Formats: sequence, structure tokens, C-alpha cells
Amino acid sequence: MPVHQATLTLNPRGAGTHEFTEAVAREVARSGFRHGIVNVFCQHTSCSLVIMENADPSARRDLEAWLDRLVPEDDPHFEHTLEGPDDMPSHIKMALTRTSETIPFAAGRLGLGTWQGLFLWEHRRAPHTRRIVVTVIGE
Amino acid sequence: MPVHQATLTLNPRGAGTHEFTEAVAREVARSGFRHGIVNVFCQHTSCSLVIMENADPSARRDLEAWLDRLVPEDDPHFEHTLEGPDDMPSHIKMALTRTSETIPFAAGRLGLGTWQGLFLWEHRRAPHTRRIVVTVIGE
Amino acid sequence: MPVHQATLTLNPRGAGTHEFTEAVAREVARSGFRHGIVNVFCQHTSCSLVIMENADPSARRDLEAWLDRLVPEDDPHFEHTLEGPDDMPSHIKMALTRTSETIPFAAGRLGLGTWQGLFLWEHRRAPHTRRIVVTVIGE
Repeated sequence: MPVHQATLTLNPRGAGTHEFTEAVAREVARSGFRHGIVNVFCQHTSCSLVIMENADPSARRDLEAWLDRLVPEDDPHFEHTLEGPDDMPSHIKMALTRTSETIPFAAGRLGLGTWQGLFLWEHRRAPHTRRIVVTVIGE
Repeated sequence: MPVHQATLTLNPRGAGTHEFTEAVAREVARSGFRHGIVNVFCQHTSCSLVIMENADPSARRDLEAWLDRLVPEDDPHFEHTLEGPDDMPSHIKMALTRTSETIPFAAGRLGLGTWQGLFLWEHRRAPHTRRIVVTVIGE
Repeated sequence: MPVHQATLTLNPRGAGTHEFTEAVAREVARSGFRHGIVNVFCQHTSCSLVIMENADPSARRDLEAWLDRLVPEDDPHFEHTLEGPDDMPSHIKMALTRTSETIPFAAGRLGLGTWQGLFLWEHRRAPHTRRIVVTVIGE
């Protein structure tokens, strides 16, 4: 069947990037398709997705810290502050990164580069349950 | 494999985010497909797309104002200024957000999260007619 | 369901945006499909993709210079510096732009707007060979 769809439930422990490449590779394998694309869609506006280097963790720490400095919590211009000081920065960080990623696969294997991993980027500090829809389309 | 395609014409009234979620949901319904993905593509380089919270308008106002502060119009480094002071900032804001979004659907319904809406983000002040190509792929 | 897939190898000469729209249009033509989408995926984390104006080169120069100012190399906060001063800024610039673009086509022709071109955005100064996976899905 030409479309395989599943919803992943992730429970990231605090703000930062959390890899879930393997869960997506598993859905590609389950689809039984050989070639095609997999769309990974984040159903939230205070977390996002990014494909980033998954070798040296210092690269992700630097990326996360840089974005924290670009979008500080204490911005006196913010009007939308009822949900806490990290809410509005979370929406901005989401808009600057990605809500979905679409990744190719070939011979049943995810077509990421050698150093690429797929990450949920949690922007809130408090624990949240996050839903990611994975749609595999291929033949 | 079944493809349904349509072009939407939007006429946003001035700079800012303009929701058009319903127009995309309508094309998914028209396709008659039950499961799949819909690609929404913006054919311009001075406006963009974003999926953002559509509940409290203050969240979008803060997001828009933050990006205006990040990319001010009076940057003396700009060389490309012939089309007006808001032209080069528009291209930069576009590059930092999204030209396309790909969204899943299931049982004929758009798979956005509870608080997500799809927005055209107009970065120019003068009225522009904007073309958005919607492609539904599924079964 | 029909899928056409190819890997492009690009050798950008130095940092900056390098157009490769024609190479993607060629794969759409090779697929033989009339309508659908083409996913263009960059297998690296220190370069990225962007769809930008391809008429006046000064617009791209301003965009590139603006991002260089936003993410300077001499940031004393960076910890991940072993691969050179332009490595960590490259990852950040990648995360702020796009790893993949998904573009519609109709009647066998790429559905870009009049002024849009597809660019590989090389963020490293040293020459790198870059692999881009192109997946055409349609009918």
C-alpha cells in the first residue's frame, strides 16, 4: 500500500535536542517500501525539528546555547507572557527552525548523510509530551 | 500514483501573518484521498510560510515584532535597496522561515496539532498578490 | 507508486549560494511524470539549501553578508572549534535555513515562481564535495 502512517509520542527530558532517527528508520522499514520519502511532522509550536550533526555533542550544545542567546527570555517587548518566560522564545525558536522534515530513503534505508541525525528540539523547560506524525510514501 | 494540484491566490492586506489553513484543508477534501501528505509551496522570495499558534494573536504579534527587530530596514550594509527599504529585509525574513510546508493528513483531515495554523507571512508593506501551489499526494 | 531518485554531486567553489535549479529540473524531466513533487535533500550539516531570488546578485550578496554578521566566527562562547573557526557558524547557519526543499511540478515543469532559484548554500570556506538526493514522486 502506497502510504504508511504512524504517530510517535516523545517525552523529551527538558529543553534541548533529542535524537529520534531510529524511530523514523523503523517506520520506513515497517512500510516495506524500497524507495521514496518520509515526512516527519511536529504537531506543536513550542518545539521543532532539526537535522544536525550527531557525532560530537559539543556541536549541539553550541547550537542550542547560540539560539538561547539570540532569543533571550527577558525581552521587555514581549506581550505574550502568561504561559511563562520560556513560552514566547519557544515559538520564535520554532519559527526559525523546522516544523517538518522530509527525508529520502533508498533500498529501505533512510538517506541521511554520514553525520546527520534527526532531532526533536524541545524549547520549553517543563516536561511536555510531543506528538510527531511520520508518513512514508514510496514503492 | 494519485496527485491533486491547485494554485491558491492570496491577497494579504499588509505585512504580517495571514492564516489560510482552511483553503488547504479544502484541497485535501477535494482530492478524495484518505491518507497522505500535502505540500504547500510559496512562489515568492519576499514572503514566506510558517506554522504557528493560532489561538492567542499576541503570540503572532510578538513573533512578527521580534523578527522586525532582528532584521531592521535601516541596515547601512544593504546594497540591494532599489525596490525599497523593506525589500532586502523581506528576503532575509523569508530565508529564515519557510518557502514550503509539508503536512500529513489522515482520514481526509489535515494533521495539524490542536494549536497549529498555517500562515502566509507577508514581509512587504505594499499589497502583493501571492501564489501558493498546493499538491496533495495520497491514496 | 512511481518514484524516480538520483544523487547530485556538487562542488561549490567556496562559501556562498550556488544555483542548481537546472539539475533538479532535469531529474523531473527524466522521471517522465507530469504532476507531483520533487524533494531535494542535502546530506550535510555545514551547508544548506535556500530558494532565493536569482535575478539581481546583490540580493544574494546582502543575504549572505547579513547571515555572516548574525553568526560571527569569533564567538568566544563556542566550544566546538576543533574543525576550524568557520565550522560552528556553518552548523548554526544550516539550522537557520533548510536541509530540504520540496517543490511542486506540473506538466513536467518545476513550479518555481518567476524569480525563484534553488541554491546550495555552502557555509565552509574550504572546498567540499556535497551530495544532494533528488526524489521525484508523481504520476
